[in-house]
Amino acid sequence: MKKIINKPEDYVKEMLEGLYIAHPDLITYTGDDVHCLVTANKVKGKVGLATGGGSGHLPLFLGYVGKGMLDACSVGDVFQSPSAEQMLACTKYIDDGAGVLYIYGNYNGDIFNFDMAAEQADFEEDIRVESVVAGDDVASAAPSKEGEKNTRRGVAGIIFVYKCAGAAANDMLSLDEVKRVAEKAAANTRTMGVALTPCIVPRVGKPGFSIGSDEMEIGMGIHGETGIRRGKLEPADEIAEEMLAKIIGDIPYEKGDEVDVLINGLGSTPLDEQYIVLRKVDEILKREGLLVHKYYTGNYATALEMGGISISMIKLDDELKKYMDAPAETPFFKQM
Amino acid sequence: MKKIINKPEDYVKEMLEGLYIAHPDLITYTGDDVHCLVTANKVKGKVGLATGGGSGHLPLFLGYVGKGMLDACSVGDVFQSPSAEQMLACTKYIDDGAGVLYIYGNYNGDIFNFDMAAEQADFEEDIRVESVVAGDDVASAAPSKEGEKNTRRGVAGIIFVYKCAGAAANDMLSLDEVKRVAEKAAANTRTMGVALTPCIVPRVGKPGFSIGSDEMEIGMGIHGETGIRRGKLEPADEIAEEMLAKIIGDIPYEKGDEVDVLINGLGSTPLDEQYIVLRKVDEILKREGLLVHKYYTGNYATALEMGGISISMIKLDDELKKYMDAPAETPFFKQM
Repeated sequence: MKKIINKPEDYVKEMLEGLYIAHPDLITYTGDDVHCLVTANKVKGKVGLATGGGSGHLPLFLGYVGKGMLDACSVGDVFQSPSAEQMLACTKYIDDGAGVLYIYGNYNGDIFNFDMAAEQADFEEDIRVESVVAGDDVASAAPSKEGEKNTRRGVAGIIFVYKCAGAAANDMLSLDEVKRVAEKAAANTRTMGVALTPCIVPRVGKPGFSIGSDEMEIGMGIHGETGIRRGKLEPADEIAEEMLAKIIGDIPYEKGDEVDVLINGLGSTPLDEQYIVLRKVDEILKREGLLVHKYYTGNYATALEMGGISISMIKLDDELKKYMDAPAETPFFKQM
Repeated sequence: MKKIINKPEDYVKEMLEGLYIAHPDLITYTGDDVHCLVTANKVKGKVGLATGGGSGHLPLFLGYVGKGMLDACSVGDVFQSPSAEQMLACTKYIDDGAGVLYIYGNYNGDIFNFDMAAEQADFEEDIRVESVVAGDDVASAAPSKEGEKNTRRGVAGIIFVYKCAGAAANDMLSLDEVKRVAEKAAANTRTMGVALTPCIVPRVGKPGFSIGSDEMEIGMGIHGETGIRRGKLEPADEIAEEMLAKIIGDIPYEKGDEVDVLINGLGSTPLDEQYIVLRKVDEILKREGLLVHKYYTGNYATALEMGGISISMIKLDDELKKYMDAPAETPFFKQM
């Protein structure tokens, strides 16, 4: 295991200490627990937005707490859910009478703890909490039927949900309205990933999976969950075609629809390669008659040093476009 | 070689095509050559700032062209200098009568070509060009004596020079004044790197160097140039101590001096590890009596997928602090 760290058991704590030192104008923590990360700029009367999840995905999740996006993030150990107590502490800190919306990825541990925290917030603290669970990974399950629960995992596309909900809350919309916007953003977002090399959880000390030196896995999850298929590494253009076919085959659209697209690096994949993929993605979307309003490129949601990328797309209407374009300032997301 | 690319010979061209698609509001190119990247927002009468260098270091160099920083970047092949012709084309595009300042890293190929371009701009185009060569890597050579040329390589610290010069030019200072600010920023900037794993130039197809699975190299350059020493991988805190000792031992300072610090990932090193190092850097600087005005953390200057980090420090006075803090908006650097 080749990492610039101290003791593996101090990994998350020391990472968080560094974060608070670096961004005192944007973030702080509550309840004497560095895992309970909250905004340093609480807005009076605004609906509070909280997320949470395991570490190892920086800048996800905590990097999106700040002005115009999230207000809190409970931080778990690497690839582990934070606790309900930590979520409750964040909830109490950010509630200002308008209620709190939880936005998090579709993983059992997170669902269990966020549900418990929401219940406690309601019964013990009289804080109204609503939840939106992001499940944008088209590789992880078939699309849910009308009225059924989405069983897909949440991956990089959750950032679109954060952005839209954050801007809606910043416009001082009510909890019900912010929830509606978040649900609309989530319903219109799809992601597909491809992995080339594995990552090592510091406490484990060895790769979570192995993959041949000439292989890739299409659809692998951000914790190494099994994808759709494993095969020989192909040229970037072919990979982009296969990934995008899954995305646009999954979302109903008409020619002329507008989308935002995120080309996301999973950790060790250079930006160069992300832009090479972006070039092909643009060609495909033009061919399909979809209009890209804006591209986002970079490491937005990682899996430690995993090699690979994901492509996320959100289909926009005028409302989502307005919220996607609104300014925001967090440690990792800055938009004028 | 495990990369998401098409033909290695198309690597840079396709990366650039992706970049122009993604950032049409900020960058474009001149002379029908995608390697001649220029700002899409020319400011009337402003001193033009140009840089250039090999590809493979994204977001360096081109990612800092935009509002409040650079106006142009000539883009070479991976780890290769761009040509004097490309530099001249950029120079002609960005000059608006106030002259052009070249800011680039201390490498022979770049010096040769930038000098030729400056000469041609002067003789053939009547454009006054001045140059500032950044050489911030303390590992690469002994400090230069008074009046001698700096023989150190330019690495991540060049971003501080871009930022200060960019803000000075944006304040409509003259070419001489912008050059003075850039020289002051360069003279007060130091960087040290450590490498853990090598990178692969696409056309070459195999690692440029090898390094044992339990080893690190302190002071390695961003093209794999030999560093100060190779040894067993140590805990993050010890690495930070050794790197920072080299930096603060090289720059004259007094207790209470203010600095900005950049913790930079070389490619495949997770942000988590960068923040773990930042935490220790902060402890050391406090011990030394230096006051950190602001931290920058992330992949600002990479070497493809190289594993490792660098630490850069700029000693501030009121003028440099003002310019470091001024707003800027480029594809990769956004500051409100």
